[in-house]
Amino acid sequence: MPLDFKISTQSETGGRRAQLVLPHQTVETPVFMPVGTAGTVKAVPQNILEDLGAQIILGNTYHLYLRPGHEPIRRMGGLHRFISWPRAMLTDSGGFQVFSLSELRKVTDEGVRFRSHLDGSSHFFTPEHSMDVQIALGADIAMAFDECTEYPADRTRAEESLRLTMAWARRSLDHHTAHRHEVPWDEEQGCRTQCLFGIVQGGMYPDLRKESAERLVEMNFDGYAIGGLSVGEPRDLTLEMISEVLPLLPKDKPRYVMGVGYPDEIEQYARMGVDMMDCVLPTRAARHGLLFTSEGRLNIKGKRYAEDQGPPDPACDCMVCRRYSRAYLRHLMHSGEALSATLNSIHNLAYYLGIMKRVRATCGGADAR
Amino acid sequence: MPLDFKISTQSETGGRRAQLVLPHQTVETPVFMPVGTAGTVKAVPQNILEDLGAQIILGNTYHLYLRPGHEPIRRMGGLHRFISWPRAMLTDSGGFQVFSLSELRKVTDEGVRFRSHLDGSSHFFTPEHSMDVQIALGADIAMAFDECTEYPADRTRAEESLRLTMAWARRSLDHHTAHRHEVPWDEEQGCRTQCLFGIVQGGMYPDLRKESAERLVEMNFDGYAIGGLSVGEPRDLTLEMISEVLPLLPKDKPRYVMGVGYPDEIEQYARMGVDMMDCVLPTRAARHGLLFTSEGRLNIKGKRYAEDQGPPDPACDCMVCRRYSRAYLRHLMHSGEALSATLNSIHNLAYYLGIMKRVRATCGGADAR
Repeated sequence: MPLDFKISTQSETGGRRAQLVLPHQTVETPVFMPVGTAGTVKAVPQNILEDLGAQIILGNTYHLYLRPGHEPIRRMGGLHRFISWPRAMLTDSGGFQVFSLSELRKVTDEGVRFRSHLDGSSHFFTPEHSMDVQIALGADIAMAFDECTEYPADRTRAEESLRLTMAWARRSLDHHTAHRHEVPWDEEQGCRTQCLFGIVQGGMYPDLRKESAERLVEMNFDGYAIGGLSVGEPRDLTLEMISEVLPLLPKDKPRYVMGVGYPDEIEQYARMGVDMMDCVLPTRAARHGLLFTSEGRLNIKGKRYAEDQGPPDPACDCMVCRRYSRAYLRHLMHSGEALSATLNSIHNLAYYLGIMKRVRATCGGADAR
Repeated sequence: MPLDFKISTQSETGGRRAQLVLPHQTVETPVFMPVGTAGTVKAVPQNILEDLGAQIILGNTYHLYLRPGHEPIRRMGGLHRFISWPRAMLTDSGGFQVFSLSELRKVTDEGVRFRSHLDGSSHFFTPEHSMDVQIALGADIAMAFDECTEYPADRTRAEESLRLTMAWARRSLDHHTAHRHEVPWDEEQGCRTQCLFGIVQGGMYPDLRKESAERLVEMNFDGYAIGGLSVGEPRDLTLEMISEVLPLLPKDKPRYVMGVGYPDEIEQYARMGVDMMDCVLPTRAARHGLLFTSEGRLNIKGKRYAEDQGPPDPACDCMVCRRYSRAYLRHLMHSGEALSATLNSIHNLAYYLGIMKRVRATCGGADAR
């Protein structure tokens, strides 16, 4: 059963408004997905995420595999039930975290051996194992196991990395196709099951990106992601890679750019035709006191806000901006209070989700055809 | 204008149900007051405190004086407005924290010199200064500046400490009476203004407690607190002191036992006629993974909860117990996630507030006369 993705309007700049029908939620795209690394969008209760209009959140396979483990989660009915999140979820493949967080990793064609960043224990991840873990977690969307090419990488390194990622994509797809029906869901989800997205890599080499995209499309995934961006490269290079790859991907399937970005970036990419994005930035920046507002970035720690009774963002009607002042948020941050991360994160997520809402509205408006 | 305190029912055990009409909220007593040390009940957003039915919360004068300072708070319209809490508030006098948190303190008849636990800066607190700070904060109820007698304290020490506390009570009352109208409230609060409670001390010596109570009642405060308990003494001594003092306090004014206690204690004292209590226990224990439930105390870190899909407390209908499992709360705690403190605190507060609600209901029920 192919993934149900209904495009309703398309703008001249390539942006499109669509509905992505997933087992747990029909997601209106373009969509921003808050990151819930260890089964929680840090510091934000699930009911508030619902109130904010979050339609789909991420879980990190690497973190959840290490703690509490995918088998306990499977036995408890899957990640949705474990964290009490009834809407859609996506799990990454664990590849990115294995390469960025773990120690002493050894990569072979077969897979990756690594040590846990938590307790130093040794683990071996293969594409097949990543699929098994993701099926046990049971998100609506799983991701192929890939190697995220570091930046900068010379051409030989990027070619070798791509070769590995393409072989792993094939193995991910084969294993997932054979086992996707084993997700730990209830009957109520009907016949729809977990879908799998392939990930375009290729470093910053347009021809490698092209090769990657074409080979993945040949394999026929449910959707396609562009990975290996926001890894330290200048922003015009990010944009170039996205511009190169987007036209190569099927128009009738969702396109997902992983791990980006700043507010103006997610708006820009959405208007170019990117349907899905995720980023830790709104929540991570929030914990450091950086708020995104209609007036630009605001560092709430600033002395100038000590007696500022205005809301964080005068143009925002989120539950934080309706109730709390800049002075209070500054005080919470300076006092190291837990409420600081919660309130700052809620506002930043509201801001990000609001951008996508506006893009969706205007995709069907003035610039739509 | 005397404090408006309407007793509606009284039980044979001495417990009474009443309404305490404060400028920002009519408080149904007996009441438990969550502690909001630095202008936030740790990890719990204000709207959730409202949903939980919290009628009055505490602020700590010592903490708020040091950061952000009472003058900025006064300029911003007072503590209610600063933290966006429209219901009732009480501030302690700062005395307890000066004695428990600060360094290098030097006590004279005039007041206390101490060093901030934050930056080592030197400060001098007198009863008059404590009143000025509390009036600037503008809670509904202020507390007289006292010395909290440590435990154990020999008789000479307890006598000397009491002498100081009684002299400071007189000075607190005189200064507060002269300046209470300077609270930074809006017109909308009408003619009602901040009230002041005296604090009974005397260590664990019944005759000193008696002397303290009688002298305070003579001074005519708006309400009376019993301080210097839960400082390490055995529980039967706490109970003995409360039993000694309660009959000495005016029946028509609110009685407040400070800093207690465990769930069964707050129920017991409420049924004896204590109208108000506060304690950091529900929130502090929550941050350490200790949940209070109808089945007893539950340490959520326990291995036995790893796959326990039941709610924290099967008899509780709080937003945490309705939505999340023990297994998920355990996972959040083990993962060091901020949501852990938030959800655990919400449940524990719901449990404490629920006890008082039940006591209020039964004060007018079977055992009422």
